[in-house]
Amino acid sequence: MSDTGITAPEGFAAAATTAGIKASGKPDMALVVNEGPDLTAAALFTRNRIVAAPVKISRANIADGRLKAVVYNSGNANACNGSRGEADATATIERVAESLGVEPGDVAACSTGLIGEPLPMGVVLAGVAKLVDGLTVNDGDNGRAAAEAIMTTDTIVKESVAHGAGYTVGGMAKGVGMMAPSLATMLVCLTTDAAVTPEMADTALRAATAVTFDCLDIDGSTSTNDTVILLASGASGVTPEQEDLNEVVLRVCTDLSKQLQSDAEGVTKRVAVTVTGTTDDTQAANAARTLCRDPLFKCAMFGSDPNWGRVLAAVGMADADMDPEHISVHFNGQPVCLDSCGAPGARDVDLSGRDIDVTVDLGTGGPGTATLRTTDLSHAYVEINSAYST
Amino acid sequence: MSDTGITAPEGFAAAATTAGIKASGKPDMALVVNEGPDLTAAALFTRNRIVAAPVKISRANIADGRLKAVVYNSGNANACNGSRGEADATATIERVAESLGVEPGDVAACSTGLIGEPLPMGVVLAGVAKLVDGLTVNDGDNGRAAAEAIMTTDTIVKESVAHGAGYTVGGMAKGVGMMAPSLATMLVCLTTDAAVTPEMADTALRAATAVTFDCLDIDGSTSTNDTVILLASGASGVTPEQEDLNEVVLRVCTDLSKQLQSDAEGVTKRVAVTVTGTTDDTQAANAARTLCRDPLFKCAMFGSDPNWGRVLAAVGMADADMDPEHISVHFNGQPVCLDSCGAPGARDVDLSGRDIDVTVDLGTGGPGTATLRTTDLSHAYVEINSAYST
Repeated sequence: MSDTGITAPEGFAAAATTAGIKASGKPDMALVVNEGPDLTAAALFTRNRIVAAPVKISRANIADGRLKAVVYNSGNANACNGSRGEADATATIERVAESLGVEPGDVAACSTGLIGEPLPMGVVLAGVAKLVDGLTVNDGDNGRAAAEAIMTTDTIVKESVAHGAGYTVGGMAKGVGMMAPSLATMLVCLTTDAAVTPEMADTALRAATAVTFDCLDIDGSTSTNDTVILLASGASGVTPEQEDLNEVVLRVCTDLSKQLQSDAEGVTKRVAVTVTGTTDDTQAANAARTLCRDPLFKCAMFGSDPNWGRVLAAVGMADADMDPEHISVHFNGQPVCLDSCGAPGARDVDLSGRDIDVTVDLGTGGPGTATLRTTDLSHAYVEINSAYST
Repeated sequence: MSDTGITAPEGFAAAATTAGIKASGKPDMALVVNEGPDLTAAALFTRNRIVAAPVKISRANIADGRLKAVVYNSGNANACNGSRGEADATATIERVAESLGVEPGDVAACSTGLIGEPLPMGVVLAGVAKLVDGLTVNDGDNGRAAAEAIMTTDTIVKESVAHGAGYTVGGMAKGVGMMAPSLATMLVCLTTDAAVTPEMADTALRAATAVTFDCLDIDGSTSTNDTVILLASGASGVTPEQEDLNEVVLRVCTDLSKQLQSDAEGVTKRVAVTVTGTTDDTQAANAARTLCRDPLFKCAMFGSDPNWGRVLAAVGMADADMDPEHISVHFNGQPVCLDSCGAPGARDVDLSGRDIDVTVDLGTGGPGTATLRTTDLSHAYVEINSAYST
């Protein structure tokens, strides 16, 4: 039994199965159950206005800060399926609730995969039965199987665990493309055996997400299904200080966020963009995001090309205060542009490694700073995304 | 002698040369001279806050609505070269002015190519001498040679001509990537023998640009050098009505804009995105632009993949009023999504042709509408842009 993810904290059962949603025959459903004694929960959802049916229903069900279970499926987003989509998500949730002997309002659902295909409800409901039968408590193998079952084009299983003083936070994540602002095309489930109020859980989750998943921008696209849920069982009997909880949740989110970046579609480079020297952190984040989304910059990174002119051209369009004549850029700590002019040796900087660090000082002397993470734009990204639905 | 571009209107001389700026040994400088009797001019420049030296100086020189000549170079953007860049642009302009016997304030300069490399002023000034020596009036071969000399990764020469009642408008353009909002990485020179005021020229140019070059968004990137100039010689003696001038200038801009789209870096598909059913035209343009920039949508177009879910996911993040449950999408006139749900046969729509027409009705019933043009995101785009400076 491993102890690397959602089942590391006390009081969580998990199961996974191959229901038959994916044509590939890979695992495609998972169930995470909070065994209590608390059923505390917090969640964040996509900011996209087009939201999948499970997002609508889960958002309502979590409003009271309480969840018993979350049911996951991959291979089908159940988005843009109209009233049928909502009926299907509701039926799935109701079947889970009935099987666990709880109210439907205590169950959430997360889906990921192709948009606009109705869920195959026969296999989904049969899958629920298999999941409920397969539940085991604090079983790392089942936790890992759940993390596998939520994968789409992910190539690695993403799990994390961090320990506080007498309690534990675990997590699993999936997501590889369509990764932008508010969250990313990703599903994340965090668990903890800390005894916390819904408000504490929500505070910790928002604080961590703001500087991890929200600072990961792979392609500027935001999905219809993004969901991050934190379940707290209270099984440790330990109630940490808010600050302490924040820190442990942040460690798990940071780790999962880096795993998402490393497994992004077609990634050959992990790029960290830090912007300083502007009025405030929001403006710094705007400039960093503009650069993270610029396809010309991203292609240059793919080619290990220290073409710093792309950086200036991109940030020059950002909604951020800057001094256009006094911008400086460093690649991997080496100056390539000073006072908006090329630095000696700029074209010879070695970007051949897998990690590239880009810092941009916008030259105003202001205190604003932000770091966002992205990847390069590679042939593999184009390949993966040119034939996704067909 | 052909009659297809900037030398089609009466009163314009042109020349081109291979100065030696480009390592490839291809033509890299051009000169366009207005022989009058009028020296009327109007121009629009990039909205990027990082602007190349020639943009700064040309913007000042055109402020009085009067230009004698425009000198072009390709292979070097003369951007981000600090005070040296401005001194070099000024020296180039002064040499042109001196050779033509006019004031430097009546000459503009446009550069395109790599950012952050100083201009090789020896070859540039020698190039100016060759250009002045080579000037011929109303010589279509020289007009075409000028259009060739401003090319960078362009694969086709871009020229256009349209006739009004007794006058003519001609044009040339270059630009293939870094094409977004306000203009695109492009240089455009329009000429006309109509007798018009600077105000008339400015009005016609702004009106045409707003619905042509500004509605072309290849990759969301905006260059430091974008410049569109209209020169009017008055040689026809005809002063058209403003409406009439607008219409003829628009015809040339529309044609050049389509040529730019067709030659965009790595293009295999020309995609027209029309958005309707939102509050106003600005919101419709916002939504269309969001879709034009979405790499997942663009990759799907490359793959001829009718993955309409990508369209909904993208427009759902746009700054536009919409009814999330009543969005419809058509590909090439066939419904693929109705009331935010898949339409029958949606996955079978044939997108294998070179032109793809996408229409999105945001479902509010509002009168807003806009059409933007983009291309697919192909392997060739990645290839071209991963090794641009090296």
